[in-house]
Amino acid sequence: MTDPDIERKLIEIMRIISESDKPVGARNIADELNNRGYNIGERAVRYHLRILDERGFTKKHGYAGRTITERGKEELNEALIADRLGFVINRIDELIYLTDYDLNEKKGNVIVNISHIDKNDIDASIEIMKYAADSDIGISPKIRIFEEDSDSNITVPPGSVAVATLCSITFDGLLLKGGIPVEPYYGGTLQIKDRDPVKFLDLISYNGTSIDPIKIFMSRRSTSVLNIMDTGEGTMLANVRYIPTSAREKADEILKKAGLSDMAGTITIGGSGEELFGAPADIGKSGIPIFVGVNTIAAVQEAGIKVNTYPISTILDYSTMYKL
Amino acid sequence: MTDPDIERKLIEIMRIISESDKPVGARNIADELNNRGYNIGERAVRYHLRILDERGFTKKHGYAGRTITERGKEELNEALIADRLGFVINRIDELIYLTDYDLNEKKGNVIVNISHIDKNDIDASIEIMKYAADSDIGISPKIRIFEEDSDSNITVPPGSVAVATLCSITFDGLLLKGGIPVEPYYGGTLQIKDRDPVKFLDLISYNGTSIDPIKIFMSRRSTSVLNIMDTGEGTMLANVRYIPTSAREKADEILKKAGLSDMAGTITIGGSGEELFGAPADIGKSGIPIFVGVNTIAAVQEAGIKVNTYPISTILDYSTMYKL
Repeated sequence: MTDPDIERKLIEIMRIISESDKPVGARNIADELNNRGYNIGERAVRYHLRILDERGFTKKHGYAGRTITERGKEELNEALIADRLGFVINRIDELIYLTDYDLNEKKGNVIVNISHIDKNDIDASIEIMKYAADSDIGISPKIRIFEEDSDSNITVPPGSVAVATLCSITFDGLLLKGGIPVEPYYGGTLQIKDRDPVKFLDLISYNGTSIDPIKIFMSRRSTSVLNIMDTGEGTMLANVRYIPTSAREKADEILKKAGLSDMAGTITIGGSGEELFGAPADIGKSGIPIFVGVNTIAAVQEAGIKVNTYPISTILDYSTMYKL
Repeated sequence: MTDPDIERKLIEIMRIISESDKPVGARNIADELNNRGYNIGERAVRYHLRILDERGFTKKHGYAGRTITERGKEELNEALIADRLGFVINRIDELIYLTDYDLNEKKGNVIVNISHIDKNDIDASIEIMKYAADSDIGISPKIRIFEEDSDSNITVPPGSVAVATLCSITFDGLLLKGGIPVEPYYGGTLQIKDRDPVKFLDLISYNGTSIDPIKIFMSRRSTSVLNIMDTGEGTMLANVRYIPTSAREKADEILKKAGLSDMAGTITIGGSGEELFGAPADIGKSGIPIFVGVNTIAAVQEAGIKVNTYPISTILDYSTMYKL
């Protein structure tokens, strides 16, 4: 085992190579590493690439650059698992930064959740998701389905498809782009009566957890979205972010404009220090509870279909998503 | 529905009355409310008691005071459920304050986890817990079993027994009594190889969650304690607290002395800002990872026995617990 600092760079380099479908050269890798906050030159990258070649993790294709080998892919996978004690909030911050959807131009990248569903269950799943969209569950009617052989950076396990749904953290990206300092704070379960939110039953902070709160609630099967669709009563998933109360009007404007791009789900914007459905707020801060995008997927899961969901997964060009 | 402020006081009053096995008078209630941080006089308490009498939740017994009625108990139970969006850290702080175990006198109250196990499974469970204790899993060989008809404030569901195990948050109480400002911070899953801790696989902060992190890991079945007992490899539960690094020696002394009272489980005390098994620490702070008491219960669950566990549940006189 060499220096952990070198190991971290080797993994990041493998990650960059694996993310491309063409061979990648040392200069492009160096540029990308610098983008990702590593201060490293082209010459140092070449040194690292030689180590990777020697270990059989990458392969050189003349001047075109390197590709990752099967062994390299396995190594990367293991390293990513070992490396996975990353706190959810850090991934959220990164994705918020990468979102660049423009509400005026109506184009750009949004944040999506990825759910893996067995191929044989996808038709039934889409039926339920349609029913959910018609019942005003969910924050966008747009989804995208990736098949096993689809040419994208989305992982699709054999025999499954990957369904991308709009992630509510996209709204945090929109608020940030609008110049509002926004803190995504809690994921939670929200009790619904007569189709109206009543109170949060549980809350888990995005800060200081390595497991996504929404993933925790989904694996605890805490939701009853199907019941809400049928009777108006049950438990849905929602999250809460905080903004300075002085930015309320601006935030309201942005979130309303998002509706024109088929992005909805905001429940309300609280006043300074106002407790919203039991979620606390500091003086000078306003809470904004928003339903999460995976509520439609929770409905699919409640119907007895096996789903593996990765909330706040990646960014995706919103124009490549289509209405259900 | 009246003023939520009044409702909260009504519930707190019912709670005080229900905690006593004798009728309680208005003056005692007022004193106890003041202890609990409510600024309220005897006269105001009488006003609230009249509301409770009218609603049929309490009953007056002449000058002796009030008792709670069956309807009152039901109401209190529902209110407590509605009220349950309490953050775990607040309960931890309260229990740490209430612990008064004296390491010199070797007596006093410790914090315990409570696990409900079916009566018919208790013999098998005790076998596994003994095996775990022999394998150095668990932080104390002492437990206590409460039967359905036992005269205590521990709830025992029909057909079950309640098993109390020492909770690792007791150590936080001991450190606090020793004058060390201690912050219980993360619950987590710790990877074990060759009987030694390797790294945290997941961490969830006690701060800002309404569901206990250890309960989350247990319901996700993230442990493999039985495997560790057999082969020395697997995943155990541990938590991390932080103290000022200047208090390291004093903490070490206290935690060593705890061993003389059959309380063990401390893995190490970190240096200033030292990352321990992947758990971060700030400069000037030392992390202390400690195995949690419910690892033995996790082993019981892994053996296929249904267990419902409430970590960091209540305080209990340590002298009433007995060795397995």
